[in-house]
Amino acid sequence: MSYFGNLDKVKFEGKQSTNPLAFKFYNPDQVVLGKTMREHLRFAVAYWHSFTANGTDPFGAGTAIRGWDQYSGMDLAKARVEACFELLNILDVDYFAFHDRDIAPEGSTLQETNQNLDVIVSLIKDNMKATGKKLLWNTANMFSNPRFVHGAATTSNADVFAYAAAQVKKALEHGKELGAENYVFWGGREGYETLLNTDMGLELDNLARFLHMAVDYAKEIGFDAQFLIEPKPKEPSKHQYDFDVATSLSFLQKYDLMKHFKMNVEANHATLAGHTFEHELHVARINGALGSIDANQGDYLLGWDTDEFPTDLYSTTLAMYEILQNEGGIGRGGVNFDAKVRRSSFDPIDVVYAHIAGMDSFARGLQVAAKLLEDRVLTNVIDDRYASFKSGIGADIVAGKANFHSLEAYALQNNPIVNKSGRTELIKNILNQYIINV
Amino acid sequence: MSYFGNLDKVKFEGKQSTNPLAFKFYNPDQVVLGKTMREHLRFAVAYWHSFTANGTDPFGAGTAIRGWDQYSGMDLAKARVEACFELLNILDVDYFAFHDRDIAPEGSTLQETNQNLDVIVSLIKDNMKATGKKLLWNTANMFSNPRFVHGAATTSNADVFAYAAAQVKKALEHGKELGAENYVFWGGREGYETLLNTDMGLELDNLARFLHMAVDYAKEIGFDAQFLIEPKPKEPSKHQYDFDVATSLSFLQKYDLMKHFKMNVEANHATLAGHTFEHELHVARINGALGSIDANQGDYLLGWDTDEFPTDLYSTTLAMYEILQNEGGIGRGGVNFDAKVRRSSFDPIDVVYAHIAGMDSFARGLQVAAKLLEDRVLTNVIDDRYASFKSGIGADIVAGKANFHSLEAYALQNNPIVNKSGRTELIKNILNQYIINV
Amino acid sequence: MSYFGNLDKVKFEGKQSTNPLAFKFYNPDQVVLGKTMREHLRFAVAYWHSFTANGTDPFGAGTAIRGWDQYSGMDLAKARVEACFELLNILDVDYFAFHDRDIAPEGSTLQETNQNLDVIVSLIKDNMKATGKKLLWNTANMFSNPRFVHGAATTSNADVFAYAAAQVKKALEHGKELGAENYVFWGGREGYETLLNTDMGLELDNLARFLHMAVDYAKEIGFDAQFLIEPKPKEPSKHQYDFDVATSLSFLQKYDLMKHFKMNVEANHATLAGHTFEHELHVARINGALGSIDANQGDYLLGWDTDEFPTDLYSTTLAMYEILQNEGGIGRGGVNFDAKVRRSSFDPIDVVYAHIAGMDSFARGLQVAAKLLEDRVLTNVIDDRYASFKSGIGADIVAGKANFHSLEAYALQNNPIVNKSGRTELIKNILNQYIINV
Amino acid sequence: MSYFGNLDKVKFEGKQSTNPLAFKFYNPDQVVLGKTMREHLRFAVAYWHSFTANGTDPFGAGTAIRGWDQYSGMDLAKARVEACFELLNILDVDYFAFHDRDIAPEGSTLQETNQNLDVIVSLIKDNMKATGKKLLWNTANMFSNPRFVHGAATTSNADVFAYAAAQVKKALEHGKELGAENYVFWGGREGYETLLNTDMGLELDNLARFLHMAVDYAKEIGFDAQFLIEPKPKEPSKHQYDFDVATSLSFLQKYDLMKHFKMNVEANHATLAGHTFEHELHVARINGALGSIDANQGDYLLGWDTDEFPTDLYSTTLAMYEILQNEGGIGRGGVNFDAKVRRSSFDPIDVVYAHIAGMDSFARGLQVAAKLLEDRVLTNVIDDRYASFKSGIGADIVAGKANFHSLEAYALQNNPIVNKSGRTELIKNILNQYIINV
Repeated sequence: MSYFGNLDKVKFEGKQSTNPLAFKFYNPDQVVLGKTMREHLRFAVAYWHSFTANGTDPFGAGTAIRGWDQYSGMDLAKARVEACFELLNILDVDYFAFHDRDIAPEGSTLQETNQNLDVIVSLIKDNMKATGKKLLWNTANMFSNPRFVHGAATTSNADVFAYAAAQVKKALEHGKELGAENYVFWGGREGYETLLNTDMGLELDNLARFLHMAVDYAKEIGFDAQFLIEPKPKEPSKHQYDFDVATSLSFLQKYDLMKHFKMNVEANHATLAGHTFEHELHVARINGALGSIDANQGDYLLGWDTDEFPTDLYSTTLAMYEILQNEGGIGRGGVNFDAKVRRSSFDPIDVVYAHIAGMDSFARGLQVAAKLLEDRVLTNVIDDRYASFKSGIGADIVAGKANFHSLEAYALQNNPIVNKSGRTELIKNILNQYIINV
Repeated sequence: MSYFGNLDKVKFEGKQSTNPLAFKFYNPDQVVLGKTMREHLRFAVAYWHSFTANGTDPFGAGTAIRGWDQYSGMDLAKARVEACFELLNILDVDYFAFHDRDIAPEGSTLQETNQNLDVIVSLIKDNMKATGKKLLWNTANMFSNPRFVHGAATTSNADVFAYAAAQVKKALEHGKELGAENYVFWGGREGYETLLNTDMGLELDNLARFLHMAVDYAKEIGFDAQFLIEPKPKEPSKHQYDFDVATSLSFLQKYDLMKHFKMNVEANHATLAGHTFEHELHVARINGALGSIDANQGDYLLGWDTDEFPTDLYSTTLAMYEILQNEGGIGRGGVNFDAKVRRSSFDPIDVVYAHIAGMDSFARGLQVAAKLLEDRVLTNVIDDRYASFKSGIGADIVAGKANFHSLEAYALQNNPIVNKSGRTELIKNILNQYIINV
Repeated sequence: MSYFGNLDKVKFEGKQSTNPLAFKFYNPDQVVLGKTMREHLRFAVAYWHSFTANGTDPFGAGTAIRGWDQYSGMDLAKARVEACFELLNILDVDYFAFHDRDIAPEGSTLQETNQNLDVIVSLIKDNMKATGKKLLWNTANMFSNPRFVHGAATTSNADVFAYAAAQVKKALEHGKELGAENYVFWGGREGYETLLNTDMGLELDNLARFLHMAVDYAKEIGFDAQFLIEPKPKEPSKHQYDFDVATSLSFLQKYDLMKHFKMNVEANHATLAGHTFEHELHVARINGALGSIDANQGDYLLGWDTDEFPTDLYSTTLAMYEILQNEGGIGRGGVNFDAKVRRSSFDPIDVVYAHIAGMDSFARGLQVAAKLLEDRVLTNVIDDRYASFKSGIGADIVAGKANFHSLEAYALQNNPIVNKSGRTELIKNILNQYIINV
Repeated sequence: MSYFGNLDKVKFEGKQSTNPLAFKFYNPDQVVLGKTMREHLRFAVAYWHSFTANGTDPFGAGTAIRGWDQYSGMDLAKARVEACFELLNILDVDYFAFHDRDIAPEGSTLQETNQNLDVIVSLIKDNMKATGKKLLWNTANMFSNPRFVHGAATTSNADVFAYAAAQVKKALEHGKELGAENYVFWGGREGYETLLNTDMGLELDNLARFLHMAVDYAKEIGFDAQFLIEPKPKEPSKHQYDFDVATSLSFLQKYDLMKHFKMNVEANHATLAGHTFEHELHVARINGALGSIDANQGDYLLGWDTDEFPTDLYSTTLAMYEILQNEGGIGRGGVNFDAKVRRSSFDPIDVVYAHIAGMDSFARGLQVAAKLLEDRVLTNVIDDRYASFKSGIGADIVAGKANFHSLEAYALQNNPIVNKSGRTELIKNILNQYIINV
């Protein structure tokens, strides 16, 4: 059975193609800066948006027309696995990612829930073996079930903390079973509704305890995935503890967790926190913590997580520019489409169109970013702007040889000071040329 | 004397040019949809940003290095006129725009102030005659002087209302003198700080009285410029009465002013009001009120009017798409760069680079929008989506032949209803191809 | 059976009471400015939040513990009616409000759906007769069902327009049947996802056609309820046509609908549009269009409709200040709690606590606003500030006797101009005293 | 000479007073929880807003009527000192705070500038001795002068870094001279305009180097003031490195500066970062970093730093609630009115009214917060909510005795889980009672 209309694998046809089912920019085997696009981008499909979600929003029921909705329970779970591998094949995407509750329904007890999971994990494993597709990351959904109403690792209820621990234990085991390259922590309910009834100190201490236990258990079972924190400032919670990359780094440092975690940076989470995507990537990168990305985009005029498929070439270019400068690029991470088709794009084929749009946009971003690097466009700008720190008093400052005495002595005889223009407008016009010309 | 370094006129060199002082996309004589780019775009330089402002912000003094700052008083005013016509010549831009207080300093009385203005207007007129440059619009600055602390036409002080009237009277006379094609009303202080001390009803009635007087006086003196309202939601005021296009239309309708005014739509004002630029243009257009544009862009993560030079090709494309569909295009209006170089771009040449960036971005937007229209890309999408209103029950609805009885009868036998996908993601990917390929 | 734990009717015990189930400020029979609190406030319970919603959010399932959830289908619908009248009795609230789909489930055809509605409307009518409770307003939910994915009156599909017409026809009939004092139009899907595929001109024309049909049909059947537009800028749609009060007035004027509609102003919708609640009420009031209010509050740091119960005394005071100044006060409208308990407040008794909080907050707001009016605190401020428009040149302006000639002549001899301080900080401190002291 | 109209010292008259020049809530000698209000609050007047600023905004000139504006240069600087001590006396405020450039004009060289400063510092010292008034903190303004266009400690120009070092060196010396209890670092230009030309890694390393030098120099000269970072997310810069408290903590940890710095938390900076004031205070507190506060408030509907005088009793109550729970309360810090009168409140007496409003609002906040603590209102809520972590599995978790094995074993036999309601609405209603009743 086909859930997407027996489509052929999507092929690269070039930027002039008018075939809606072809790639215009994503050419998986094209070599850019020494690696293929496929290797650079490591695209992943997100199970929750493409196989579990159905287009509901707070004001309306699901609109998505999906073949698997004829099933329910474990049959539905199995049909989704089939659909997932069909889509991966159509899109020629190597990776996927899931929460535990995306792939299998909860039972009436944790035991039953775990049994359901075991069945589907086994089925997924078979499909992976048959197709060569890989698991970019898995994670535990600890926000949808009502038991997590007050949080999971930061709950006010110790019984819920214990449940969350059991759930992550199982997820780590499944991650190992499936060879997941990463394991993600996104704490949608790890935050508060109101400070009036919240013991933030205890909650954060507990969160740290929880993460240390997870690190310990992964080590115990030999699961060597990269561990990732996924910052988000709010929604569903009024405030979430992993507000942004800097806040998460602050937490990791305080609780001696820096060496165990990197960041899974999401574009829309960045903008909800008041940052650009590239800012968050940059902060992660210069702190050695850029692990993976959730590729999507928000709407700057809407205040919630719209999780749109990424099509803004400025954003994809600057994101790839950060990734290309990261040591090892995206490394064990990947470009995961944590993105959903609009509620009004309800046909199965819209899921295909949307991924093509996202993949083309990131491929174009990669091309432009690579050319900017090759031509040293921004590198030259920066070398020139900061040249004063390469010699003389500037070099002394950087080398730790200056102090307030020596600097005052220098300043007192150094008059006037001359600055250089930052040339923002010129640089932006050049960026436009690169986006068009590359 | 040269204020911009004896530059040659900026020429079109094509999209591969690496000459920072060449146009890459703006080719003034290139014909697009039957008109030259020059005719379509009618670019204007904004006097206030380029000749009066100096890079101050609320936390710092001016940074701009400008040759005319060696002068003061009327000498300064005269130097600025020279600088203006030098820049217009360098950029090959035909139009400029100014507030009265940009071009001449206030005196100690209104009489003196008006005399200062007369002198400079005469000088400007001579320069216009000598160069063929034209005045896109003029306006009265009724927000900078402390007397306007509580507003101008919406002040709580009748003496200020009278002063404002005298000021606009003079500005209309000068507009006529210089052959201005438009006259703009932007009411930066026409709003309130707090409702607790505000009589909004009286203030709006007075604003309407003021505008009627302006209409009457322009008619009396035979000044036939297009009158424009420029909506902005806030800043400097906490709330401004011309919040957005729809609010301004509501006001114009209530006070019987619709036939006398169109809109000068600014990109950054749109985003401050929670709208896209193209939304505001579209609302103005379908109400027959799209008059002119203030071309710039804001920063979605900053909550004030950043007035950046426009470089976002999505925004310029969709703006030009609205303008191309407007009856008569931009008509007597123009594309006025109400934009300032960043405070850190303080060299005179940055003003040139910035205008080149803006002109190229609008030229590219024009090219892309024209091709979208020629290929009927979005037109076909819309024709197809709304086809049901072309025949049957839909045609009846549009023709006014349906009522709740006939529609209920139809609905009761029409089950199930089938909708078509909106295809947002596919359309956005095609838009990207157009931006790159055109 | 009791759904709220066999509670006694909530009584007024005064501001020192520590009984969580007593009113501290709401004393229904207390007379304020000549009317009882009950008459001023006309509180209503919102069916959707209190009997239909269950605490779901985009990231999680329902948490609410509700006795009626043991039922399904029409049994559930009947149980909810029982719960509604139980709560109205406990809270001593006279009014309620509902969407058609809140009270009865959809069937597989419109016929079945209407039959379900008829059954429940009849049951509600019996309960109203038995208890004396009244329907503040009803409305049609034309946003939850997938058929409305592209809008209802502004859909791209004529079949959906017809269905919507049939639905509103039925709702108007039920409104008449139940003696509803108002009928509300809130168009959650009347807007767009992207302009790229939208014919806004046609959609707005169709919306006007739809509203005219509704006016005509109400007249035909003798349903004389007050018709209300409920502005909201966005959510679920990216942009909604009834963005705010001013935008809605612009629409009503253009399509000759002003005499048929007033506004149902919601606090949280105001803040989402970038306005204070009191601003929106004020704009409606000075345009003769303040009809009713949806009482709630948003969270300024969150970008979606949080629909919190109103507890901010600044907001309730200034809202009541507008209502007290409205001709006839809230008139046929009321104070409808379009508010939901937080997802973490999942007990039935939280619904009671929350309404008490909202009712006390509005009662306190009423007390403070009345005292401000009685003491002429703000009235005196305004009379003093605008005194210059009561005589001399100011009176001429207001009387239409001034023009640019007379005003210029006045201004030329009137130097310098002296303004008076607006005294914002002093006024705000006095407001604090009133909130505490009254 | 008097700059504020020969006013008497403002006295406490109680909450019913209608004297605009009396305190209604601030009674300096009233004892609350064992300390006088004066000791708890340690109010300070901000030199820049009250003696240096004049009501300019980006769209208009200064409006403030100030007696000292008849002077210029050093005479002006001296007049401001006089005005400062007059206002401190009128308000009965013990502390003030200033930037170096607030108190004395820059000369043509750093030497001259320092000489100017020395003169005024000496004058201030004399006034302090004569009156007993104290310096809460001083700081260096490294954002107004054009030399700081690219930052100070994070500039791209080593010469500017040196100048900044010399400036802070002098400021530390002056702080010691005047016995300042704190020294503040606010880096308005320590950030970036665009990442495209920015080396964030180098800039942050340099900032750390700079702060270490400051720590070393203060130690060297025996200046033992508390050092404070003042977070702000943006404005004037597009992005500022000290975005919020958590980001600043992340920086301090990374560069081994935690033991040397606490936070000066500003209300309006908090809201610009997407946080409540109490959130930022809370984060600082539980990290042992709550040092001092800048008391003001923003406008949630405006996206810039409005620096309004604080009058929101919810905010002052919750701020004081954090401070009362901080070890040592506000400690060596204070409540500094980093607030300016509205541009429309231009009379000298408005400065007095505004401070009275702010002081009364914080005094009321203190009263309410103290009573909430005394009555254990929120303490009981929290004790009850988190009770499960006091025994059994919860106690094991907190004690570090649990791991994923033990927690899974517990969870597998613990079904179902029961949560308790968070009672947000009830708590908010009680908070309203306290604000009114205390």
